[in-house]
Amino acid sequence: MSTLKVQLGERSYPIYIESGVLSDGARLNRHIKGNQVIVVSNTTVAPLYLEGLCASLDPALQISRVLLPDGEAHKTVEVLGRIFDTALQDKHNRSTTIVALGGGVVGDMAGFAAASYQRGVNFLQIPTTLLAQVDSSVGGKTGVNHPLGKNMIGAFYQPQAVFIDPDVLDTLPHREYAAGLAEVIKYGLICDPAFYEWLQHHRDDFVARDKTVLGEAIRRSCVAKARVVAEDEREGGVRAILNLGHTFGHAIEAAQGYGTWLHGEAVSAGMVLAAKLSMNQGWITDSEVARLVQWLEAMSLPTSPPDDMSVATWTEHMLRDKKVLDGRLRLVLLAQIGEACIVDNLPQAELEAFIATFSAA
Amino acid sequence: MSTLKVQLGERSYPIYIESGVLSDGARLNRHIKGNQVIVVSNTTVAPLYLEGLCASLDPALQISRVLLPDGEAHKTVEVLGRIFDTALQDKHNRSTTIVALGGGVVGDMAGFAAASYQRGVNFLQIPTTLLAQVDSSVGGKTGVNHPLGKNMIGAFYQPQAVFIDPDVLDTLPHREYAAGLAEVIKYGLICDPAFYEWLQHHRDDFVARDKTVLGEAIRRSCVAKARVVAEDEREGGVRAILNLGHTFGHAIEAAQGYGTWLHGEAVSAGMVLAAKLSMNQGWITDSEVARLVQWLEAMSLPTSPPDDMSVATWTEHMLRDKKVLDGRLRLVLLAQIGEACIVDNLPQAELEAFIATFSAA
Repeated sequence: MSTLKVQLGERSYPIYIESGVLSDGARLNRHIKGNQVIVVSNTTVAPLYLEGLCASLDPALQISRVLLPDGEAHKTVEVLGRIFDTALQDKHNRSTTIVALGGGVVGDMAGFAAASYQRGVNFLQIPTTLLAQVDSSVGGKTGVNHPLGKNMIGAFYQPQAVFIDPDVLDTLPHREYAAGLAEVIKYGLICDPAFYEWLQHHRDDFVARDKTVLGEAIRRSCVAKARVVAEDEREGGVRAILNLGHTFGHAIEAAQGYGTWLHGEAVSAGMVLAAKLSMNQGWITDSEVARLVQWLEAMSLPTSPPDDMSVATWTEHMLRDKKVLDGRLRLVLLAQIGEACIVDNLPQAELEAFIATFSAA
Repeated sequence: MSTLKVQLGERSYPIYIESGVLSDGARLNRHIKGNQVIVVSNTTVAPLYLEGLCASLDPALQISRVLLPDGEAHKTVEVLGRIFDTALQDKHNRSTTIVALGGGVVGDMAGFAAASYQRGVNFLQIPTTLLAQVDSSVGGKTGVNHPLGKNMIGAFYQPQAVFIDPDVLDTLPHREYAAGLAEVIKYGLICDPAFYEWLQHHRDDFVARDKTVLGEAIRRSCVAKARVVAEDEREGGVRAILNLGHTFGHAIEAAQGYGTWLHGEAVSAGMVLAAKLSMNQGWITDSEVARLVQWLEAMSLPTSPPDDMSVATWTEHMLRDKKVLDGRLRLVLLAQIGEACIVDNLPQAELEAFIATFSAA
């Protein structure tokens, strides 16, 4: 068992990483305070793991189940309402615990429901996709999308614990697996050059889904995420580096319609754009960009954006990004491989000229 | 100028109470951090005060206006969405400030929007009803109703400042004014016997809306509220005493349909029920109950519940209240006039027998 801790004062919490932790009843029950539980999952994950999880919980608990439709397209206020409906119909009180069993969408929605139900109840994360395990389940960002922007409605709300079982990745479709790897290599790029080299070295092991290598990659990713979040819980400063590739990525997701591109796929293409823009600044070399592209391509991840987005579409979506401050776009770029920097003084004309190199007329 | 402070560590904030503070541009502008403002008001208040407020703000600010329909019936997730729609259409970023200009419904909804928009933005309260001035604008409770329960979806989210202008009460309809007085006398009942006596002494001044007496009543109410909130921000314990009359009151509001009874009216009838139940325990006398009823009646407040609610209806709605913990109803009663207590061991049969004395067959 690998146990990490996210250090946030009275909101600190453990991350347990181990095969079989999903059915480790004793450990799960230790983190449930009241006598009611709401397990939120989706129609893809539930048939695989929901009843196993429920069977491992204390039989004295009142358990309600909410199954959401699968996919980013359903990460809406309307679908969120189903969690509140069930919670109230089944008379869950303020000491209930909401458990997220699923990927990033389930975690974000269950987390926002936990933040908002009766103004805040207990919350546990059991991420079942690689992306959720290395990224969205750690750090307390929760929320839903709005037709005009991704994650625009939500809360910073920390779970009481995160349970990561690498075994669940066995059932993960390749596209989802690869999307998670995009966030893994992001940690190497933004803050851990040694990890980046290790990832490059183990490229074939990731293609083969080697369990040992994967477990270590999850652990090191969570360490990086926990460290950045502990420094800056509410994204006032350094936490923004976690958004490498995300401003371009969110524009792709929004313009294509949420769910068309997976989040990790959009981040993959977005990271390549951020790397190229960093190269234009003279901060990294073209061979470093090429090496990144090769690794992502080996995982079958997209490394260029869709070709149907105009400069106006790009600009419109990028300016709606949460990282815009006082009308000024803040981009996360690479000062070098393994070190991100935040740039808020890139001339608008230079950015548009860059966007024009890959956008539709 | 009377300035109070709500003591909550890094989330502390001032409450300014003074005639004319609504158009005190210098003071308002000092609490606006970014260069964008969203003023949320309703169709009743806006024609009276919205443009005056906007004119007193820094002309360099980008100001968006959101007018909600008036009344508790519109305190829903759907109507809340209009604030997000405007915020995104007008490209408000994370450093925007949401200003609530209106009564409790506007404050609760604008506050929850501020808590959730981009996971939290700045928030100012300008309450324009007596009820909002003495209660809902102070303490950080925000949220919306669900068809199955009042305030079931929300957040604890503190404003950066509260601006209370007693002059706005001149335009307040009598029903709204009286509803606010129900919360004023509540503070006397739960924690300030001297204030309770003072309120009884000034009964006719309240009927006449004497400005000096009213200003002092607002100040003492805010002092009481701020003290209780500072002790217990998230209602883990003592804050629950603020809910005197609210468990019965919420049941009335829900059963009659939100907005049929004003919140303060339901609390008025609920306080009388709580007082009678306290009398049944031998804690207060029937003459003390009668004196409370007389004061409320002098303000034209209801002192008995609607006669069309069955025991089953009462029980169903009361058990859905947020103050239910592990299935056990926690009632706020009066140990004596000026001292509330929380009772969680009242036998179910005794409560039902009490409810039967005033409910429909």
